[in-house]
Amino acid sequence: MSDRKAPRKKLLKALAGEKANGIPVWLMRQAGRYLPEYRKVRAEAGSFLDLCYTPDFAEEVTLQPIRRFGFDAAILFSDILVVPDALGQKVAFKEGEGPVLEPVTDLAALAKLSSPDVVRGKLAPVYETVTRLSGSLPSETTLIGFAGAPWTVATYMVGGRGSPDQAAAKAWAYRAPDEFQMLIDLLVEATVEHLSAQVEAGAEVLQVFDTWAGSLPELSFERFALLPMKAIRKKLKERFPDVPVIAFPRGAGGMAERYFRETGVTGLSLDTGVSPAWARDNLQKAGCLQGNLDPLLLVAGGAEMRRQALHILETLGQGPFIFNLGHGIVPQTPPEHVAELVRLVQEWRS
Amino acid sequence: MSDRKAPRKKLLKALAGEKANGIPVWLMRQAGRYLPEYRKVRAEAGSFLDLCYTPDFAEEVTLQPIRRFGFDAAILFSDILVVPDALGQKVAFKEGEGPVLEPVTDLAALAKLSSPDVVRGKLAPVYETVTRLSGSLPSETTLIGFAGAPWTVATYMVGGRGSPDQAAAKAWAYRAPDEFQMLIDLLVEATVEHLSAQVEAGAEVLQVFDTWAGSLPELSFERFALLPMKAIRKKLKERFPDVPVIAFPRGAGGMAERYFRETGVTGLSLDTGVSPAWARDNLQKAGCLQGNLDPLLLVAGGAEMRRQALHILETLGQGPFIFNLGHGIVPQTPPEHVAELVRLVQEWRS
Repeated sequence: MSDRKAPRKKLLKALAGEKANGIPVWLMRQAGRYLPEYRKVRAEAGSFLDLCYTPDFAEEVTLQPIRRFGFDAAILFSDILVVPDALGQKVAFKEGEGPVLEPVTDLAALAKLSSPDVVRGKLAPVYETVTRLSGSLPSETTLIGFAGAPWTVATYMVGGRGSPDQAAAKAWAYRAPDEFQMLIDLLVEATVEHLSAQVEAGAEVLQVFDTWAGSLPELSFERFALLPMKAIRKKLKERFPDVPVIAFPRGAGGMAERYFRETGVTGLSLDTGVSPAWARDNLQKAGCLQGNLDPLLLVAGGAEMRRQALHILETLGQGPFIFNLGHGIVPQTPPEHVAELVRLVQEWRS
Repeated sequence: MSDRKAPRKKLLKALAGEKANGIPVWLMRQAGRYLPEYRKVRAEAGSFLDLCYTPDFAEEVTLQPIRRFGFDAAILFSDILVVPDALGQKVAFKEGEGPVLEPVTDLAALAKLSSPDVVRGKLAPVYETVTRLSGSLPSETTLIGFAGAPWTVATYMVGGRGSPDQAAAKAWAYRAPDEFQMLIDLLVEATVEHLSAQVEAGAEVLQVFDTWAGSLPELSFERFALLPMKAIRKKLKERFPDVPVIAFPRGAGGMAERYFRETGVTGLSLDTGVSPAWARDNLQKAGCLQGNLDPLLLVAGGAEMRRQALHILETLGQGPFIFNLGHGIVPQTPPEHVAELVRLVQEWRS
């Protein structure tokens, strides 16, 4: 890439492995219920999926945290479950309950789902939002598109809702791994289509969320988390060789190193439980890291938030690094703590 | 220890670092609701705490899985919340809800708790159970005593119940770390008394469960998980230099190495998410490992259970190793799958 013009945006620089000149910062779920301006739009929008599928609303809530805090990246406001919704599975978001899906637990139910080529048509309003954002964002702000990883999306598709132990998806994966693989393969294809359409609409970086990767034992992690991410990365690279991909295999622990190396993703997002010192010594040589302040430190604020944020910056800020949380912002977060954190990162110099 | 007689029990051999001649096996929550004979005693016992505090009942349910499966170790039937109960916090177990405690969230509530020296008197029936078990167990079976680690017990004491994110305990730990440290210090002392009394009553090995260690960011993990375990280990070693201690810092990920080395525990129990290959390369040189089959593989049974159990044995069985699960047995586990697993481990030869 030596003959290409160096990317000018701070986040793209970090992902290109350039020595930081100031650390870029954005936060998972930076658009959301902790912001009064979000709650206002949310109340107007009808259902949660209506919010995701109405470009006027989705564009607005994506921009809100950029206006308020000046983050280095905006992440498309959407949800990982738009993919099963596009594939024809019934998906609803119930107030106080989270997502509820009609479970897909066998080959008969799997056969009723659409093929991945429907995704682009069904999710056209999402790509319309991306197109608008790529015009409306400040020139220094990077636009991130995203999707859920196949395993994590499958846990919802099979279980019909979130669960602490992913028991339903594991039951299928353990009883009939080759059947379950067919669901994963479908999701690999659908995810590639969904992410490709976002790039074509203007997304500059892609992030893939594997929230439940850490609950898988080694052999299942390899098959249902690592290999699907590797396949997605490979197909995206063929289509868009210059678009960086960040993966977030939450809870991958000691497997993070192999995952980072073998999937070939550009950046690795670290959960709160990852030691920054361990990550610096074992992961940062393979690429850009991102993370990993505890979202509950952002709720608490004060001296302890500042101390632990500085610890992360001082430990990881010498290599390619993006400051973020270790998981999404929670609704009870005071917006003024977010403002203080962003200022702290922006003012920090290695 | 070269002048002492080598321990004869298989589990003690593994913990002494001896090359395995057959791998010892026991399972977390091996006494419990998946066994019909347990459900029978449970129905007779009144409340869950009555079960823990009545030696006739507690001894019986501890022995049940030994009779049925011939495990190499029996673990005292009790609960990690007997310590706050002994300290005077109100603890109840509600059907279908789990434990409910009157939350301790400030120094005033903390001041109302008893000092650690009450533990031995209040928990006398528990030690009576240990004494009986040390007489009634088969001569080849090792008796394990246990306690919850201070951080994990504190999450229940402060939150008043289990929670997915330990938000209440973190709120205190982040807002006023030095106050929260006083609770942790109290628990270190109380835990040492509780474990010491178990050894004096006949426990041969101790296990300390830190179920929620993995949710702590590095600096908090050091202070509230690693250092308390190190302090407990040190005090126990002074009193009982030959009694092995196993720690289970669930979700410690890449921090497991430092934790194992710096706490000085004899054995490390691995959760399901830990890669056996990574553990072999990074942890086994520091001591005996234990783990880590997914409890949901034990529910599924069949070829996938066997394949993944063999993977663990083949990867970790060359060094000092104890076969176990990565977390506790779940109630829906078919007892015949447990029998098959135990047979598989017993018949395996490295």
